[in-house]
Amino acid sequence: MTEAKRLAAEKAIDYVEDGMIVGVGTGSTVAYFIDALARMRDRIAGAVSSSDQSTQRLRAHGIEVMELNATGSLALYVDGADECDPHKRLIKGGGAALTREKIIAEASKRFVCIVDPAKRVDVLGKFPLPVEVIPMARSLVAREIVAMTGGQPVWRDGVVTDNGNWILDVHGLSIVDPLGLERDLSQVPGVVCVGLFARRPADVVIVGGEPPLVL
Amino acid sequence: MTEAKRLAAEKAIDYVEDGMIVGVGTGSTVAYFIDALARMRDRIAGAVSSSDQSTQRLRAHGIEVMELNATGSLALYVDGADECDPHKRLIKGGGAALTREKIIAEASKRFVCIVDPAKRVDVLGKFPLPVEVIPMARSLVAREIVAMTGGQPVWRDGVVTDNGNWILDVHGLSIVDPLGLERDLSQVPGVVCVGLFARRPADVVIVGGEPPLVL
Repeated sequence: MTEAKRLAAEKAIDYVEDGMIVGVGTGSTVAYFIDALARMRDRIAGAVSSSDQSTQRLRAHGIEVMELNATGSLALYVDGADECDPHKRLIKGGGAALTREKIIAEASKRFVCIVDPAKRVDVLGKFPLPVEVIPMARSLVAREIVAMTGGQPVWRDGVVTDNGNWILDVHGLSIVDPLGLERDLSQVPGVVCVGLFARRPADVVIVGGEPPLVL
Repeated sequence: MTEAKRLAAEKAIDYVEDGMIVGVGTGSTVAYFIDALARMRDRIAGAVSSSDQSTQRLRAHGIEVMELNATGSLALYVDGADECDPHKRLIKGGGAALTREKIIAEASKRFVCIVDPAKRVDVLGKFPLPVEVIPMARSLVAREIVAMTGGQPVWRDGVVTDNGNWILDVHGLSIVDPLGLERDLSQVPGVVCVGLFARRPADVVIVGGEPPLVL
């Protein structure tokens, strides 16, 4: 699986063009992408990072990390996913960076998602759906999630996001209407971000392998 | 206007019952409500507060402030508004406490909104619509608001919310479909809360006057 992640990450380098500011996600697959990006660091203008973790790794490689408010729209965003369906809709947030990841994906013209084969599913939901919440709304949001979806929200105890918020992981879902669920959950007060990427899915999915599969 | 605020706040005391945990909003009208609540503080179980500002005032009066995660649903929430339309839909957030206010309103069975007559409008939008955003998404959200609404978002420079976020005030709107606008803006990545209360409007609106008007 480690090798598949590396192969997907290496393939994503094909989408990086000279002079680009590259949006960079978070996670173990993205770590390989950052390492590959380092080899061409003199040809890119810099990166926008979705987490303190990725920022550290980018800086350690001598890649300049820029603020999204300063860069404006990005040409490319590369990130992993926890699940990916045939329509390139995703579940993300296992690494608790979902909000910043969704922001950068939204700000980017092309979103290239790099995964190993185990992340591909027909219907999203086997991986528990992460929902970032304002701490004071934890119980309220959990109650509404139960009522709306029938899923079981579990507080990711001890985890605080880069935005100072908490995560609920919703178990037991079979998400047949990702767009509708994303829309409805996003409106619940106290929900900062839903780890469903359906309104803005990936544009390209690269599944690691020999050779990598580009969807 | 000061007197109208006080009269609305005093009238809201009619909705407080013995033993209640009372949800308490934020702002100049609510300050009068907290002062009135203090006179019956031995008859209520405590309060849930929407801001550090209200928490301080409640505690100064010897009213116990509780955590929403511990109390569960509330019977009553009392708060002001910046604008109120004939369907009891509101614009809130002039005091930058919109997210916590919306959370408590959602958690409450009855939301009593106390306003002076100047807050009543036929169509929401003359008051700039506050939108709380994750700081890194400020420019992105501003661009999307312009594209979606035609309004002019202005960064409330120097203001940081109790959740560590920033506020955009959207000028120049005439909100003919508050429910749709609340739904659409809530889905933009980086938006933490939209200061439109249409999905969950007030249940009762008290307009300060002699006598107060109860809608």
